[in-house]
Amino acid sequence: MFDITIVGYGPAGITAALYAARKKLSVLLLGDFPGGEVRNSGEIENWPGDGQTDGLKLADKLVEHLKLHQEEVTIQQVKVTAITKNDATFITTDEHGKTYDSKTVIYATGRHPRLLAVPGEEEYKNRGVTYCATCDAPLFSGQEVAVIGGGNTGAEAVIMLQKIASKIHLLHLGEALPADAVLVQNFVNDPKVSIHYQAKTTKIAGGAMMESLTYADGKTGQEVTLPVTGAFVAIGAIPNTDPVKNLVALDKFGAIVADRYGTTNVPGFFAAGDVTDIRDAQIVVAAGHGCSAALSAGDYLSRS
Amino acid sequence: MFDITIVGYGPAGITAALYAARKKLSVLLLGDFPGGEVRNSGEIENWPGDGQTDGLKLADKLVEHLKLHQEEVTIQQVKVTAITKNDATFITTDEHGKTYDSKTVIYATGRHPRLLAVPGEEEYKNRGVTYCATCDAPLFSGQEVAVIGGGNTGAEAVIMLQKIASKIHLLHLGEALPADAVLVQNFVNDPKVSIHYQAKTTKIAGGAMMESLTYADGKTGQEVTLPVTGAFVAIGAIPNTDPVKNLVALDKFGAIVADRYGTTNVPGFFAAGDVTDIRDAQIVVAAGHGCSAALSAGDYLSRS
Repeated sequence: MFDITIVGYGPAGITAALYAARKKLSVLLLGDFPGGEVRNSGEIENWPGDGQTDGLKLADKLVEHLKLHQEEVTIQQVKVTAITKNDATFITTDEHGKTYDSKTVIYATGRHPRLLAVPGEEEYKNRGVTYCATCDAPLFSGQEVAVIGGGNTGAEAVIMLQKIASKIHLLHLGEALPADAVLVQNFVNDPKVSIHYQAKTTKIAGGAMMESLTYADGKTGQEVTLPVTGAFVAIGAIPNTDPVKNLVALDKFGAIVADRYGTTNVPGFFAAGDVTDIRDAQIVVAAGHGCSAALSAGDYLSRS
Repeated sequence: MFDITIVGYGPAGITAALYAARKKLSVLLLGDFPGGEVRNSGEIENWPGDGQTDGLKLADKLVEHLKLHQEEVTIQQVKVTAITKNDATFITTDEHGKTYDSKTVIYATGRHPRLLAVPGEEEYKNRGVTYCATCDAPLFSGQEVAVIGGGNTGAEAVIMLQKIASKIHLLHLGEALPADAVLVQNFVNDPKVSIHYQAKTTKIAGGAMMESLTYADGKTGQEVTLPVTGAFVAIGAIPNTDPVKNLVALDKFGAIVADRYGTTNVPGFFAAGDVTDIRDAQIVVAAGHGCSAALSAGDYLSRS
């Protein structure tokens, strides 16, 4: 019986484990990917204190830090398939059917971006294709880029890029932008910004780096190729909540409803980072949330 | 007229400035101490990714990172004495009477611990005397220590130390502990923990490092000296909110009431980190909160 089972091996889960270990709580950390989605990131310029780093380096640093706490933290590199609660005990099942008991859970499995699912998308990920404008917009200084998705996330990406890119194409599937008008007014008359309606992305291509994006124009039936070196995909993100969807309250997007301290509607079950309904999917925010969730779990254990 | 004036030069203020700079917003950062209170910290083991660092090194890293954004961020090393709002403009006044205009403010000036104000306290700060058990308890493995203050913060410090220290003295001024009973039950029967009531700390002493703490026993009138190498001072913290106490809503402890995104009751005025009513005074939490406040300010500017 562990004090805490942490599910998720990214910045939120690792920071939670560091804080729980420093309280000498017994921690089981289950996750399939050391460093989580961070490991898949390209350049990273917004982890405070490390002006220039990349996903691999930052993931390695976080994992190294955790290794200082091998006495308190047991790590199993497995996928979790289900979590249930039986009286005061949480039972976590992994992909091999093995179960683990704990008094509390911190769930920090992140979210994954909804993909375009077109040729070239996977190949040019981090070589032009990105899913986070806040993270990556500054890397495209002076370049011609596309933003795919006309909701608020896409509109915010365009606004960020207005001061950075030389030319921005906003591609949207429908005939009108669903983004808030107050956001759209920032760029609707900007000659740098072209809005393409009824535009369905069909291909991303290039050499070593991305060089173009092709879309089907629903009005003309023609294919159009844009000479863009960046594609900001902003068509949604999917929280990784399958194993707990019958245990804890989710919002309409499938994210765990959690407060700033990681508290959910289930006593003893805490959640942190991008898997929750937090607004800002940023590494430093997830790490801070993981810290708070660990302190909440410690408090729960002291009081029960 | 700046887009954002950031007041405070610690992890929250610096992270806010990094995120605002990456959005190409014009930022003025005002603060009297590069790195903020972090610079005064001793060893730091809980900044994710840096297993072993110290306050000086971490403060320097944060400040170095910010220097990459000199184009967007103007830094003035001054104390701020007042902030007022005039229509949609914030006017910030520094200690020399100079004023600065901005469309938004992010206020991140931290808090300072209430001091014992006894001989030796200043001398042995970070050489035995500490104000943060979550940060520093693990540094006192196998040692005999004192916790000063019988509220929840003091009780939580005792609970953390039970698994770490060899012997813990809890000193409280009154005749009963104000901490929640559910916390106190964790240690009231632990032979490792001695509770001293009506105990008023009078002196901290030692050689290179702290070696003892002396208190006046209110029952006997005697002075008692404890051979402790650590003193966890847990008698409260004071948010640095004087310059804004007439502008923004504060809670009963003088902290700015702010949500997880840094939003306050004053449109355009955001706050982050330990100066707010946030529960967890941890560097990584403050940095995450600073990030969110900058994204909130950016959103506010896009929508107004």
